[in-house]
Amino acid sequence: MQDYKTIYTATDVKHHPPLAGEYPYTRGVYPNMYRHRPWTIRQYAGFSSVAESNAFYRQALQAGQTGLSIAFDLPTHRGYDSSHPRVQGDVGKAGVAIDSVDDMQELLAGIPLAKTSVSMTMNGAVLPILASFLVVAEEQGVAKQQVSGTIQNDILKEYIVRNTYIYPPDESMRISTDIITYLSEHYPRFNSISVSGYHLQEAGAEPALELAFTIANALTYLDAACARGLSVDAVAPRISFFFCIGMDFLQEIAKLRAARSLWAELVRAKYQPQNPRSCMLRTHCQTSGYSLTQQSPLNNVVRTTIEAMAAVLGGTQSLHTNAYDEAVSLPTDTAAKVARDTQLILQHETDLLRTVDPLAGSYAIEHLTASLQQQAKKIINNIAAQGGMLAAIKSGYAKEQIKISAARRQALVDSGKQGVIGVNKFTSPDELLAVREIDSNDLLQQQQHKLTQLKQKRNNHDVQQALANLTQQAKTTTINLMPATLDAVRARATVGEISAALATVFTRYQPQAQVELTDTYVSNYGEDDTVARVRTRVERFKSRTGRRPRILVAKFGQDGHDRGMHVVAVGFSNLGFDVDLSPLFQTPEEVARCAIENDVHVLGISSHAAAHNILLPKLVAALQAEGATKIRIVLGGIVPPQDYDYLHQQGVNAIFATGTPIPACAEKVLDILEH
Amino acid sequence: MQDYKTIYTATDVKHHPPLAGEYPYTRGVYPNMYRHRPWTIRQYAGFSSVAESNAFYRQALQAGQTGLSIAFDLPTHRGYDSSHPRVQGDVGKAGVAIDSVDDMQELLAGIPLAKTSVSMTMNGAVLPILASFLVVAEEQGVAKQQVSGTIQNDILKEYIVRNTYIYPPDESMRISTDIITYLSEHYPRFNSISVSGYHLQEAGAEPALELAFTIANALTYLDAACARGLSVDAVAPRISFFFCIGMDFLQEIAKLRAARSLWAELVRAKYQPQNPRSCMLRTHCQTSGYSLTQQSPLNNVVRTTIEAMAAVLGGTQSLHTNAYDEAVSLPTDTAAKVARDTQLILQHETDLLRTVDPLAGSYAIEHLTASLQQQAKKIINNIAAQGGMLAAIKSGYAKEQIKISAARRQALVDSGKQGVIGVNKFTSPDELLAVREIDSNDLLQQQQHKLTQLKQKRNNHDVQQALANLTQQAKTTTINLMPATLDAVRARATVGEISAALATVFTRYQPQAQVELTDTYVSNYGEDDTVARVRTRVERFKSRTGRRPRILVAKFGQDGHDRGMHVVAVGFSNLGFDVDLSPLFQTPEEVARCAIENDVHVLGISSHAAAHNILLPKLVAALQAEGATKIRIVLGGIVPPQDYDYLHQQGVNAIFATGTPIPACAEKVLDILEH
Repeated sequence: MQDYKTIYTATDVKHHPPLAGEYPYTRGVYPNMYRHRPWTIRQYAGFSSVAESNAFYRQALQAGQTGLSIAFDLPTHRGYDSSHPRVQGDVGKAGVAIDSVDDMQELLAGIPLAKTSVSMTMNGAVLPILASFLVVAEEQGVAKQQVSGTIQNDILKEYIVRNTYIYPPDESMRISTDIITYLSEHYPRFNSISVSGYHLQEAGAEPALELAFTIANALTYLDAACARGLSVDAVAPRISFFFCIGMDFLQEIAKLRAARSLWAELVRAKYQPQNPRSCMLRTHCQTSGYSLTQQSPLNNVVRTTIEAMAAVLGGTQSLHTNAYDEAVSLPTDTAAKVARDTQLILQHETDLLRTVDPLAGSYAIEHLTASLQQQAKKIINNIAAQGGMLAAIKSGYAKEQIKISAARRQALVDSGKQGVIGVNKFTSPDELLAVREIDSNDLLQQQQHKLTQLKQKRNNHDVQQALANLTQQAKTTTINLMPATLDAVRARATVGEISAALATVFTRYQPQAQVELTDTYVSNYGEDDTVARVRTRVERFKSRTGRRPRILVAKFGQDGHDRGMHVVAVGFSNLGFDVDLSPLFQTPEEVARCAIENDVHVLGISSHAAAHNILLPKLVAALQAEGATKIRIVLGGIVPPQDYDYLHQQGVNAIFATGTPIPACAEKVLDILEH
Repeated sequence: MQDYKTIYTATDVKHHPPLAGEYPYTRGVYPNMYRHRPWTIRQYAGFSSVAESNAFYRQALQAGQTGLSIAFDLPTHRGYDSSHPRVQGDVGKAGVAIDSVDDMQELLAGIPLAKTSVSMTMNGAVLPILASFLVVAEEQGVAKQQVSGTIQNDILKEYIVRNTYIYPPDESMRISTDIITYLSEHYPRFNSISVSGYHLQEAGAEPALELAFTIANALTYLDAACARGLSVDAVAPRISFFFCIGMDFLQEIAKLRAARSLWAELVRAKYQPQNPRSCMLRTHCQTSGYSLTQQSPLNNVVRTTIEAMAAVLGGTQSLHTNAYDEAVSLPTDTAAKVARDTQLILQHETDLLRTVDPLAGSYAIEHLTASLQQQAKKIINNIAAQGGMLAAIKSGYAKEQIKISAARRQALVDSGKQGVIGVNKFTSPDELLAVREIDSNDLLQQQQHKLTQLKQKRNNHDVQQALANLTQQAKTTTINLMPATLDAVRARATVGEISAALATVFTRYQPQAQVELTDTYVSNYGEDDTVARVRTRVERFKSRTGRRPRILVAKFGQDGHDRGMHVVAVGFSNLGFDVDLSPLFQTPEEVARCAIENDVHVLGISSHAAAHNILLPKLVAALQAEGATKIRIVLGGIVPPQDYDYLHQQGVNAIFATGTPIPACAEKVLDILEH
């Protein structure tokens, strides 16, 4: 946790930062910042079918949005076509389903790519998705030098937090570097990577940790590209960043300022670039999803506004503001409009754009900026000492830091030490919010139909040859995979086929899930009556049955948001439960098998991608088919209250709304087991 | 309009401010500010009956509100009992109806006055209302030194903008000073005045003007009290302030900081106080109602959050945050909760309270602070040269400054030069919002019944004697009116009776309404097609009928919010209409008479106190009774869309939602006249 002095004075400012547009760019990368042009309003969106998402984009651009940002569904991220049996619950849920370049074409229909910059959050299936986008631009007749946008292509953080990788780390780094190299040679206005702290903070990282890991990741990509023989000035100006902006207003402003000067100093020290742009950290920001509450959802407008202001006062280049209902579901139209209008109001109705970096010189902000920069530098040096970020990822160090930070943060909220209005302070009866529902049965059929048609229409011989070529090239390390991917896409190979062609060489990565054994949760939560009661009941359970209550904490489907899973595992373990973690990306049948093999009393499912209504009944059926009817099922994560009745009917014993403290969950689990 | 440099640097900071708690208190009046104790969450509320308002207060205190702030209805402000024939449309509408100390007792039932600080927005009927409150405390058995709170008692600004005075300026100043004197002698913890810039900005003042007039008013009160022989240290520490916080975030932060150092310097220079508290400006703030839009009401949560943050970063002592539906009606429970939660979120979920005056040292903020202080000082000197604020009020100068500023601001919005999302930028179809409706028929009967009972129960001889005594004392200027008012209240004289007893000596003040003849509106709006079209049509109308279209702009009932009325008058006049203004506080019958006598084509009613549903039908009836059926009626102000159908049926020809540009209104009026 950041320390703050009671009061800062002029003596806390060691260096007065130079003007914006001047090294090290603490005050901003451009001399006139928003006075020249406001930040880009870039709302991340996508759901269900390409047709629906396309309509949504066009409407948003009409209504004041100034850039596009595509959310893909999890099967796409993970390189599966919608027809794949493993992904039945996830198609079109947390983003739009893209199976082929034809889908991409429909998604972008009527949106002039020569004029609209497009951001794509894609890391796993980054080769076929980027290639599909470039082929659409090509087929729209847009010149390469006109295509502008960003591909996230930040695979390293996926191993630390978000888990939408496909291949193991080394192979993924090769792909990422292939893309950086290819774009630097052919697409001068396209950012080849967006190094993302966002997911790190969402998964639990404090701002200093978010900052450090993000910069360390960025240096890893830069190193890799330079190791291919590219000059720093060919690569660095195309690296963009993506930070999360949480509720600590002062600290988040300082973080963005610190990020800029830290990056500038590190790049200059290591690479001595000639092009000033190599040292300029340009960033997208998104307000924090973690800070949103399911309770009193309109309060989320307040939170998002506070965060948006911090992003703006920190000097972001573009911004996504979350919608107030996103703690429960994808945004409804009304909520999406308020989110967009939040930025328009800041741009049109306030004086925030009338002067550059208005908080520069503030004793507190300058001091926090310097302090965050220092803290981050220390962490980066530590990582360097471990052999760099790739090594810190492979050793599990990086993930562990996040897990510890997440458990601490959760414990502070659960115990009420960190107040959250409507959750642990000033609670009130729940309101039922209208949610956007995705009819995935319909969508599944639609996507499968399109895939069947595509496969009939295309020249399958060409496709097979292109895929074989790709597999062949994957075996070498000297060939850039982009051209062969583009050929496969032009031949209408699907996202799933291209991913599979590479996986035959690279394999699919399956990490080991480990239960954190520290007492991070309880030591931060503190001792209270509930904790004491749970511990006593656990011991009583043990003396009565001969063993501790045992829980398998699991996720199913392609949902890789594992913060909740890890925090629950640490918490239950700290409270005396035996805890097992299931691997990620399991089918319901695999989860059932794992629960039976571990002989658990209860199965705790963590759901963050809206697949529970489809996958949970399958899980129950699988348990029943194996006669394991005694295993109780509890569910947590993002579950709209509208789904509760149905899920209870299907056999879920308890559903925990976000914000339920872990000791209360544990007590409820004991109630169920002792019933 | 404030100028901003493209970028501020260290050279823009001429003086680094000393620590908070040190003269001139730029950084805050207390050394530890919110680290010691957060600002008071004080939501201004009150509506309908005392029973309903009491329930609302108790619920709000339960839900995290930390102070009380009572909104009175307009008849109470203006010193009329609910039974008075002139106030039929206004009872319980814009606040709670208080006719007697028994009402006050019921209003505060179950709220321990020894522990709850109570703010009362009362200026007109300030004697009977303050006395009622003190008698309730007395009858609750609370010691005088324990009673804490604030009475607004700022009558000067009522003549400039809000018009809830009763008596002429000199007599009102005497009352105000009586109260300051009395409280300073008997109630050590009660703020005897809250000098309010709020209404000035709401009525159109730029922040510098708001700041200057407020400080100038405060000096006038201080002078008056000191002229009574009180020492500055007996008076100044009990003066509190009340500012409006609008959308110019940086400027509003600077304004609060400038207000503190300006006040400190002026008081020290003029009075050489011994008590440091005499130089400390403590203030309440409220987010701007003017900035709220009827369109896309949830966007108002965004606006209020931005403004609340500015108030907090400016170092306010207490804060009211507006509810998102207040552009249309009194807040619903849901909207009131979001407004309150906005402050709770800032207090509990952000780092804004972790360091004192976090933006101190910011080049831009320090420069704006100094610059606003300078601008305000210039205006204050100008007022002093005119003989002080009372003179500037009597000459009309003060009101004129506000009217010019209001017309300019409105023209900038109407022309789209100042963007307002959902109004002149990125508009979208209207949503119908649930509004809080007040059933005033029921309430009227209830209040009248209580009054009848009171008059039967009390000793009417004592009452008459107390009132006669009050009238007698009003004739001298040497006797403080508070003791006699307290006696009258204890005897159960009503608010109306006490006010009338004083009015027999003081008279009721009726200002002259004047149409501003400058071209302020059109010169700021600029020339466009609509303006040209309206002008041509006006000329055509004139050549056809022999005279210009003539409009009477009027308000009825006790509603004194005259910003809209004046702006519309200036705008229509600038566009070529003949414009008459009706006096304030007219009955519907008086407005009808005025329209007939002025032989107008159209009557433009401006309604801001929700009395239109009651008063408009009476207006139509009065016109019909006099055979003036050709006069068209248009309506603007705060009118919930739910009322439109009813009002159209009653004979209103057009209703203009807030945000309709004046040229568009004028065009519609011409359509109606030419129909």
